[in-house]
Amino acid sequence: MSTRTNRQVLLNAHPVGFPVDSDFKMVETPAPEPGDGELLIRTIYQSLDPYMRGRMNPGLSYTAGVSLGEVMGAGTVGQVVASRHTGFAEGDFVLSRNGWQEYAVSDGQGVRTLDPATAPISTAVGVLGMPGMTAYVGLLDVGGLKDGDNVVVSAASGAVGSVVGQIAKIKGCRVVGVAGIQKKCDYVTGELGFDACVSHRRETLPDDLKAACPDGIDLYFENVGGKVFEAVVPLLNDFARVPVCGRIANYNMTTLPEGPNEVPRLMGLVLVRRLLIRGFIVFDHAARQGDFLRDVGGWIRSGELTYREDIVEGIEHAVGAFQGLLRGENFGKLLVRVSDDPTRTSEAEPR
Amino acid sequence: MSTRTNRQVLLNAHPVGFPVDSDFKMVETPAPEPGDGELLIRTIYQSLDPYMRGRMNPGLSYTAGVSLGEVMGAGTVGQVVASRHTGFAEGDFVLSRNGWQEYAVSDGQGVRTLDPATAPISTAVGVLGMPGMTAYVGLLDVGGLKDGDNVVVSAASGAVGSVVGQIAKIKGCRVVGVAGIQKKCDYVTGELGFDACVSHRRETLPDDLKAACPDGIDLYFENVGGKVFEAVVPLLNDFARVPVCGRIANYNMTTLPEGPNEVPRLMGLVLVRRLLIRGFIVFDHAARQGDFLRDVGGWIRSGELTYREDIVEGIEHAVGAFQGLLRGENFGKLLVRVSDDPTRTSEAEPR
Repeated sequence: MSTRTNRQVLLNAHPVGFPVDSDFKMVETPAPEPGDGELLIRTIYQSLDPYMRGRMNPGLSYTAGVSLGEVMGAGTVGQVVASRHTGFAEGDFVLSRNGWQEYAVSDGQGVRTLDPATAPISTAVGVLGMPGMTAYVGLLDVGGLKDGDNVVVSAASGAVGSVVGQIAKIKGCRVVGVAGIQKKCDYVTGELGFDACVSHRRETLPDDLKAACPDGIDLYFENVGGKVFEAVVPLLNDFARVPVCGRIANYNMTTLPEGPNEVPRLMGLVLVRRLLIRGFIVFDHAARQGDFLRDVGGWIRSGELTYREDIVEGIEHAVGAFQGLLRGENFGKLLVRVSDDPTRTSEAEPR
Repeated sequence: MSTRTNRQVLLNAHPVGFPVDSDFKMVETPAPEPGDGELLIRTIYQSLDPYMRGRMNPGLSYTAGVSLGEVMGAGTVGQVVASRHTGFAEGDFVLSRNGWQEYAVSDGQGVRTLDPATAPISTAVGVLGMPGMTAYVGLLDVGGLKDGDNVVVSAASGAVGSVVGQIAKIKGCRVVGVAGIQKKCDYVTGELGFDACVSHRRETLPDDLKAACPDGIDLYFENVGGKVFEAVVPLLNDFARVPVCGRIANYNMTTLPEGPNEVPRLMGLVLVRRLLIRGFIVFDHAARQGDFLRDVGGWIRSGELTYREDIVEGIEHAVGAFQGLLRGENFGKLLVRVSDDPTRTSEAEPR
């Protein structure tokens, strides 16, 4: 029997609106033992992403929902602590989906070995993982980015938005971000090199955005919904494209906003301006994984593309960190460090 | 000086909501004389199409608006009555844009000669003209029709919808139409060969449509907006496509419908089901003209595709006929016969 204790965060209740502490439950169980052909993985980094809110609902989402009493799902970076699988050795760093817990066994399906020499292992759930690839396929494939496009990106300092805007800049476009606090806006126009950034916290957002987009908007990368979407719509040019990646502002809505019903106005613009609005999920674009890793990996190595991580220490803070994510309190890709990362010295800490 | 009188329908006022008689004015002027390099065309058929409602507005539409006191625009089939243009001879049948009037001069730009031996000349503004091509590019290019798609078409007995559904049937899809009165529904499932047709006049439209689409909807060809769109949305399958061609139910709206604001729910479905919603205008797809004429012309000759014309006699009835079009009173492609068609005998009249 294992002597390791496995702390796990379970879904305790389907949140109604904003998820509260009692919607989750932390339990301690003995860590499982790997059987024949299995490996035991210790979680080092657990990813926190907005899509997880949808999985907490009892209704249908694009990923199967989490059942009550089940461990919350999450992409994770970990280390193999015991292996009875020929493809993995003790000590290997791996990308897997352990969920919100300290240990998990796996039969190796969907587990990918990571080389800490090529990139920090945490990036496998960030800029070189699902969020980065979401940005890549959403902008290039779904959005059909074209030379000279005027691009607007919401959640611009976040895991996806920051990559969207930087790729668009690399491709020679003009890019305007939408973010929250001034510090994030400064980061977006400073380190990320966007042409402008406006805050969604200001009452003047529609006017601010209009002033920042004198030639209108050819491509809006939708991460948030709500009032940012409303401010964007009137500025969309003929043939503008709107890849819909997320709508975090609406995830916790329990009722629809008051009227009037704006759907006819939106659809009228879709027709007259020949707009394309298209939802997408990164999992449907797995064939682009190789291109993504080559391009974004290359841009990181060349220094053309940068990223920022917001690391919270300890799985006991996962729920609070996720609540903060829904409020826009994180600054960069949000991760929970569940256990020590032996590849990182304290000097090498990210910002 | 000409001795011909030219009756013209001018825009007298920008309609507010539903166009009323006094928004138009019929005037009589002497027919113009062709100058050097010009031709004089007598209108035989004048097309009436829903898009014209948008052109009556003072605001921006996708085609330039009509100014007050100007002749209303329209595609027309006519005959050359005098030519000082080397490319056209007296007696030639031509497709042009004479607008709502009996005569017009032209420098030949955009004028196409028609051969009455290959197809009835009226079809040049119908099944083999703009409405037919709208159906063709909207379904195949914008909608990306795929084998086995479950297709729904609104305004299914109309100039565009009837062609959409028949092409989809030819391509092996299952097709459900939405139309008004029972006679139209019978025509849609009978002569047009759709698999089913539901009426938007019944209170039970959402349930009727659901029952008619047991496998959901993969492609919805949007001609109408309003409550038909609302009934369609919940039935859209993952990866469904919605080419937005028109929204006649909303053209005369002066205020938005009462709330709640359904935009967040719509955009939520766009994301979760990876929907594609895309507005289009046929003029942007001119490169497909040759393919369209070859394919649809071929299907008409082989008897695989049929069409129906609703012909109103006399330009003095153009306004009333257009009002009827907005109310869904026409049955088939609506035309005004402005003057005699020498290619048609009374026996050859369409239904």
